[in-house]
Amino acid sequence: MTSIAIVGATGYAGVELAQACASHAHINSITLMSAREGGERVPADPRAQAFIEPLDLGALGSDFDVVFLCLPHGLGHQVTATALRGSARVIDLSSDYRFRDAAQYERVYGHPHPVPELCDVAVYGLTEYGREDIKSAQLIANPGCYPTASLLGLLPLVNAGLLRAGSRVTIDAKSGVSGAGKSPTETTLYGNVNESVRAYGVGTHRHAPEIESRIDADLALTFVPHLMPMFRGMLATIYAEPAAGVTLAQAREAIADRYANEPFVHLIDSQPATSSVARTNHCHVAIAEANGALVVTSAIDNLVKGAAGAALQNMNVMLGFDELEGLRTPDGGAL
Amino acid sequence: MTSIAIVGATGYAGVELAQACASHAHINSITLMSAREGGERVPADPRAQAFIEPLDLGALGSDFDVVFLCLPHGLGHQVTATALRGSARVIDLSSDYRFRDAAQYERVYGHPHPVPELCDVAVYGLTEYGREDIKSAQLIANPGCYPTASLLGLLPLVNAGLLRAGSRVTIDAKSGVSGAGKSPTETTLYGNVNESVRAYGVGTHRHAPEIESRIDADLALTFVPHLMPMFRGMLATIYAEPAAGVTLAQAREAIADRYANEPFVHLIDSQPATSSVARTNHCHVAIAEANGALVVTSAIDNLVKGAAGAALQNMNVMLGFDELEGLRTPDGGAL
Amino acid sequence: MTSIAIVGATGYAGVELAQACASHAHINSITLMSAREGGERVPADPRAQAFIEPLDLGALGSDFDVVFLCLPHGLGHQVTATALRGSARVIDLSSDYRFRDAAQYERVYGHPHPVPELCDVAVYGLTEYGREDIKSAQLIANPGCYPTASLLGLLPLVNAGLLRAGSRVTIDAKSGVSGAGKSPTETTLYGNVNESVRAYGVGTHRHAPEIESRIDADLALTFVPHLMPMFRGMLATIYAEPAAGVTLAQAREAIADRYANEPFVHLIDSQPATSSVARTNHCHVAIAEANGALVVTSAIDNLVKGAAGAALQNMNVMLGFDELEGLRTPDGGAL
Amino acid sequence: MTSIAIVGATGYAGVELAQACASHAHINSITLMSAREGGERVPADPRAQAFIEPLDLGALGSDFDVVFLCLPHGLGHQVTATALRGSARVIDLSSDYRFRDAAQYERVYGHPHPVPELCDVAVYGLTEYGREDIKSAQLIANPGCYPTASLLGLLPLVNAGLLRAGSRVTIDAKSGVSGAGKSPTETTLYGNVNESVRAYGVGTHRHAPEIESRIDADLALTFVPHLMPMFRGMLATIYAEPAAGVTLAQAREAIADRYANEPFVHLIDSQPATSSVARTNHCHVAIAEANGALVVTSAIDNLVKGAAGAALQNMNVMLGFDELEGLRTPDGGAL
Repeated sequence: MTSIAIVGATGYAGVELAQACASHAHINSITLMSAREGGERVPADPRAQAFIEPLDLGALGSDFDVVFLCLPHGLGHQVTATALRGSARVIDLSSDYRFRDAAQYERVYGHPHPVPELCDVAVYGLTEYGREDIKSAQLIANPGCYPTASLLGLLPLVNAGLLRAGSRVTIDAKSGVSGAGKSPTETTLYGNVNESVRAYGVGTHRHAPEIESRIDADLALTFVPHLMPMFRGMLATIYAEPAAGVTLAQAREAIADRYANEPFVHLIDSQPATSSVARTNHCHVAIAEANGALVVTSAIDNLVKGAAGAALQNMNVMLGFDELEGLRTPDGGAL
Repeated sequence: MTSIAIVGATGYAGVELAQACASHAHINSITLMSAREGGERVPADPRAQAFIEPLDLGALGSDFDVVFLCLPHGLGHQVTATALRGSARVIDLSSDYRFRDAAQYERVYGHPHPVPELCDVAVYGLTEYGREDIKSAQLIANPGCYPTASLLGLLPLVNAGLLRAGSRVTIDAKSGVSGAGKSPTETTLYGNVNESVRAYGVGTHRHAPEIESRIDADLALTFVPHLMPMFRGMLATIYAEPAAGVTLAQAREAIADRYANEPFVHLIDSQPATSSVARTNHCHVAIAEANGALVVTSAIDNLVKGAAGAALQNMNVMLGFDELEGLRTPDGGAL
Repeated sequence: MTSIAIVGATGYAGVELAQACASHAHINSITLMSAREGGERVPADPRAQAFIEPLDLGALGSDFDVVFLCLPHGLGHQVTATALRGSARVIDLSSDYRFRDAAQYERVYGHPHPVPELCDVAVYGLTEYGREDIKSAQLIANPGCYPTASLLGLLPLVNAGLLRAGSRVTIDAKSGVSGAGKSPTETTLYGNVNESVRAYGVGTHRHAPEIESRIDADLALTFVPHLMPMFRGMLATIYAEPAAGVTLAQAREAIADRYANEPFVHLIDSQPATSSVARTNHCHVAIAEANGALVVTSAIDNLVKGAAGAALQNMNVMLGFDELEGLRTPDGGAL
Repeated sequence: MTSIAIVGATGYAGVELAQACASHAHINSITLMSAREGGERVPADPRAQAFIEPLDLGALGSDFDVVFLCLPHGLGHQVTATALRGSARVIDLSSDYRFRDAAQYERVYGHPHPVPELCDVAVYGLTEYGREDIKSAQLIANPGCYPTASLLGLLPLVNAGLLRAGSRVTIDAKSGVSGAGKSPTETTLYGNVNESVRAYGVGTHRHAPEIESRIDADLALTFVPHLMPMFRGMLATIYAEPAAGVTLAQAREAIADRYANEPFVHLIDSQPATSSVARTNHCHVAIAEANGALVVTSAIDNLVKGAAGAALQNMNVMLGFDELEGLRTPDGGAL
C-alpha cells in the first residue's frame, strides 16, 4: 500500500488530486498539507471531508512514498529537496523543473535555477511520451496544462515527420479561468471573466518555450493563450503545414495509430468540446483541413489531464499500478 | 426625415437594429415586419415597445427610404427586388450578396445565385473600406460578423504591404452564441453552450471565402470559428507573417495610421476583451509579436459592429448623416 | 448480480443514471433504451461508451431485475405495466405515480389516471422517509426534484411538531435549467437563460401538491419555483413559523438528530451552496432565524439527489445493497 | 446647465452613473473623482474615455451643483459635509443616511451615527414614493438595491391596506454578483459564483431594517438575499397575506393604479425576467396567487434602478428636469 502527501492541497489542482487519490485502490494514506494555512488545522473543501495540516518538512522527509507538490512556481524547492533526501519520490505540478536544463530555465525566467542539479534529475511527465523514464524517476515535472493539450495534438504529426520542415506551427489555446488559480484577483473576478474573451501573455507566456522544448523538429512555434468565460476546460487549436504530398488521411492515421492503445487519448470524428472531457483524464483529438493547413483540435480538462489527473497517472506508472487506477470515468474504463 | 423598414425584426440582429434606430435623430418612422409572425400583430421585444407587422411587399415597394433585411440566407431575394424596384435603398444583413460575383456565390453554395444580376449592383458594406461606393449604393451587402472582425484587423497590414507574399494568414475566431440565432437548437441549448468551447465548420464555414475575397494579396487564408460560452462578443486572433525586415513597430504604426480618423475602430495597448466593446459599434484592435509572427487581435460585438450597428453606420453614409448617429456610446462620442 | 434497464436513457437524468450504475459493484448488466431514437442503434453520450437500443417491451417484460423509467410524464404507463407483469421491479422517475391516490392525480392533472390500480401499488421513494416500504416495493415513484429539496429541509420540523399549527410555509425554490430537460425550447435557449432569473409556474406548478401531499400537518404551503442561469443545482429556501416557545436551537437540533445517521443528508453551519453538492447524492441543510421566522435552506443536485441518484439509492434499498453503492463521492464515503 | 461630480467613480455604480450622465441633455460638466486612485490621473473604464481625478475636497465645496457619492459605507461623511457646506446638493448612494433617524442607525450598526444631525436632513430617495420631499432635498439617501426592488413591489399593497394586519411578509431576493462590488474577494471569485446559488446574511442583512423602516403597517418582515450566478439583475419574490376578502384582482388593480403614470415601474402580465430590465431604469412587477398567498415579483437592474439610475432620476426631480432624461431606453421613452 502507498502513503502519499499533497503539499498545497487547498488550491484547485490540490483538491482535484485529493479527490482522485481518495478513490485509488492502492493508496491507503493521504496527508494534505498547506504552507499558507499555517499552524492551525482547517477544514479542506467540504466535499473532501479532510483536514489540512501545516507544512511539515520533517514528515515529508521520512513518512511518504510519493509527495505531490501543488505549489505556485518557485515555492517548492525546499520541499522537493527534503522529500528526495528521504524515502519519497516527488511529482511536482509546478513549472519549476519543466525545462530541459537549467540554462533554458534561466533564459525563460531571467534568473538562475535555484537548484540546478535537480534539473537533470527531473523527468518530464507527459506520460504518453515518456513512460520508460517515468517508471524510474525520482522527480517528475508534471507538464503544464497548455503544453499537455498542445503536445498531445501535435506530437503524432511531428514524430511521423508529416509537417513541412521550417514551417510555422500556430497554437491558439483557450482555457477556463480555473487555470489562473483560486486567489481572488482582477483576472479571476466574476465581473471580468463573465461574458468576455481575451488573449493574454502574447509572445511572453512561459508555456511557449515549454512546448517548444519538447518538439524535436525544425518548426517555428507561435503560441497564444486565451481566457474563456468558464471554469474548467481547455482547447488547443493547432494549425500546421503538411509536408509536400501529405494528405489529411495520412495525418489522421498517424494520430489514430499513435493513440490506438492509449487509455486516455482518443481521436474522435466530431470537433471535441471541452465539456465532453470535463472531470476526466481524457484528451479528445480531432483533425481537419482548412485551405491546405492541418487543423488539430485537442480538448482536455485543465485541472485533470492538465494537472492532477496527469500527476496521478504518472504515479501509477512510477509504482507499476494500472494506469487507469483512480482515474476511471463513471463507465469504469477508458472512454 | 427618414422612413425605414426592418424585415425580420424579431431576430437578435433585428431587435438590436430597431433599438439603435429608435435613438437616431433623423429616422422619424420605423416599421417592423416579420415573415414568420404571419398576419397577427404581436408585441416585439418588451423593451422596444413596438409591434411587428406581417411582411407587406406592397408597402416595401413604395413607403420607405431604407429597407433593412435581417432574414436568414436565401429568404430575402423577393423583398430585395421589390424594394429596389420602388423608392427604397436596401441594406441586406444576410449573406445573399456578400460575394464578389455570382460565380463565386455558386462555387461557395453549390447552386446558382437566384438573382445574379443583383450581385453586380450590390456593394460590400465594410464601411471603413468602402465609403465612396456605399454613398451611392442601392443595395448594400452588410458583411458577416467574422469577416468584419477579421478584415478590420488584417487589412491595414495587407494594404500596407507588410505581409510576406505567399505566406499563410491564420484566423482563429471566437464568437458568442448569439451568432447562431434565436431559434432553439442543439447549438443554442444552454446545456450545450455553458462551460464548453469547441471549433466548428473547420474548412467549410462560408465566412472563409467571404474574407478571402476581400483580400487583394498573395496570401493563403485559414479561418476556424469557435463557439464560446457567452451570449455576445467576437474575438478574431489573426496570425500573419511579416515581410522581410518588417518590424512590430511598423506593423503597429500601419494600423494606428489607418484608423487614426475612424470613429469606430481603435488600436489599443492592452489585449482587447470582447466585454469592452459589448453593446457598442466599436472595434478594438491590438497587435503583438510571438516568435516572429504578427498576432493581431480584433474584438467586436457580433450583433452590433458585426451586424446591426454596421448596417446603421452604412445607412448614415448612404444618406449623408453623421456616421455616429444612433451609434454613440453612453459618453456621447467615439470611444 | 443485477441486470437493469434504463428506458429514456438519452435525457439528462438517464445519462446521469447510466453513469452512476456503471460504477455500481452489484450491477453486471445495463441496457439502455430510448423510445425516441427508434429502431437504429445510436451512440449515447460519448462519455458513457454505450449504445442506445430501441424500446423493446418484450425484453422489458422478462430480462431485467430493475427497470428505471426516465420518460416524460404520461409516456411510461405501458412500460411500467409490462415490466411489472414480468420479473422486474420498476423505479419511475416521472411524476406518473407520485400522488397519494388516483383521485389526487385527477385533481392535479384534470383527467383520470390512466392506470389507477397502480397508484395504490406505487411507493413514494423519498428514501429517508420510507425505507421500510421501499424495501418491498414493486413500483417506486421517485420524488420530484423540488419535493426532494423541500421535504428534506422541512419534514424534520414538521414531524417534530415544531411549526405553528395553521401557519403558512413558504418555499422559494431555485433550479438550474437542466430541470427543464434536454429539448431545445424557448426555456432552455442559452440567450434566454444566461444572465437572467425569473419565477415560473406560480400557483400552478405540479410539485406544489406533491409536496403538500407528503406533509401530515395543519400547514398552508406556498411553493414558487425559479429558473437560475446555471445548468445543475437546486436550492429550496423554506420559510416557516415556529410554534410558540420553539427556539432556533431546538429547530436545529431536530434537524441534526433526524439526519445524524443519514448517509446523504447533512446539517451544515454555513449557508449551503448548490455547487458544494453538485454531482453528488448529498443534500446540505442549514437553518437560521430571520425576524421570528425559521429559514431552512436545502441544496441538492437536481439531476442526482433530485433524480438519478435518488433512484439508485432506492434500488440499493430495494435489493439490500449498501445504500452508498454507486453513489460515493470521490472521498469514498459519506460527505 | 448643470455641473456634477461623481466621487467613487471607478466602482460599478460609479461607472454606470458616469455613462448615464454623459448622455444627459442638461449636464454640461462631469468630474470623476476617486479616493482610492490617489494623486495620479488614471484612465477610467475604457468605454467612458474619461479621467479619474483624486479626491479634492476644496473643489467639492465650491464647484458643483450636484455631488454623487458612490463610496462604500462610512467613507463619505466628510465629503457630504463639505459639499453641503458649499453650493452642492448631495446624492449619496451608500447606506449612510438611509435610516429614519440616528437611533435606528445605531441599533442596526451597533455604533452611533458619525454625523447624526445630517440624518434628519437626509431624504430617502425612493423617487416614486417621495417626489415632493426630493424636490427640495439638500441630501438624498439613495435607497439600497434590495429595498428598491422590494418596496416597489410591496408598497402598493401595503398602502392600499390590502394585507392582513399582523401577518408576515416574506421577501426572497436574488441578486447578481455586481451587487458585491468590484473588489476581488471570495464572494466575487468566478469559481465561487459560477454555477452556484446560495443565501447569505440570513437574519442579519442591513437591507432588512431599511425595508422595514419604510413600511407603515403592522407587518412582520422576513428578508433573505441570495447570490445568483450572473453579473447584474435583481429579482424580489414577495409573499404576502391578503386581508380578508381581498382578491388577486383587487391586488393587481392596486398595483396597476399606483404605477399607471409612473415612467419606470410597470405591471406586466408574464413573470418578469431580470434580463428584460437589464441596463434600464425600469422595474417590472407581476402579481399572482399561490395557495392563498399573494406573490409579487419585482425585477430591476441592481446597478441602474437599484443604484445609478435611481440617483440620476432623483437628480432630475431635484432640478426640475424631465424624469426620463439620461435614462431613456433605446426606444427613446418609457418602456
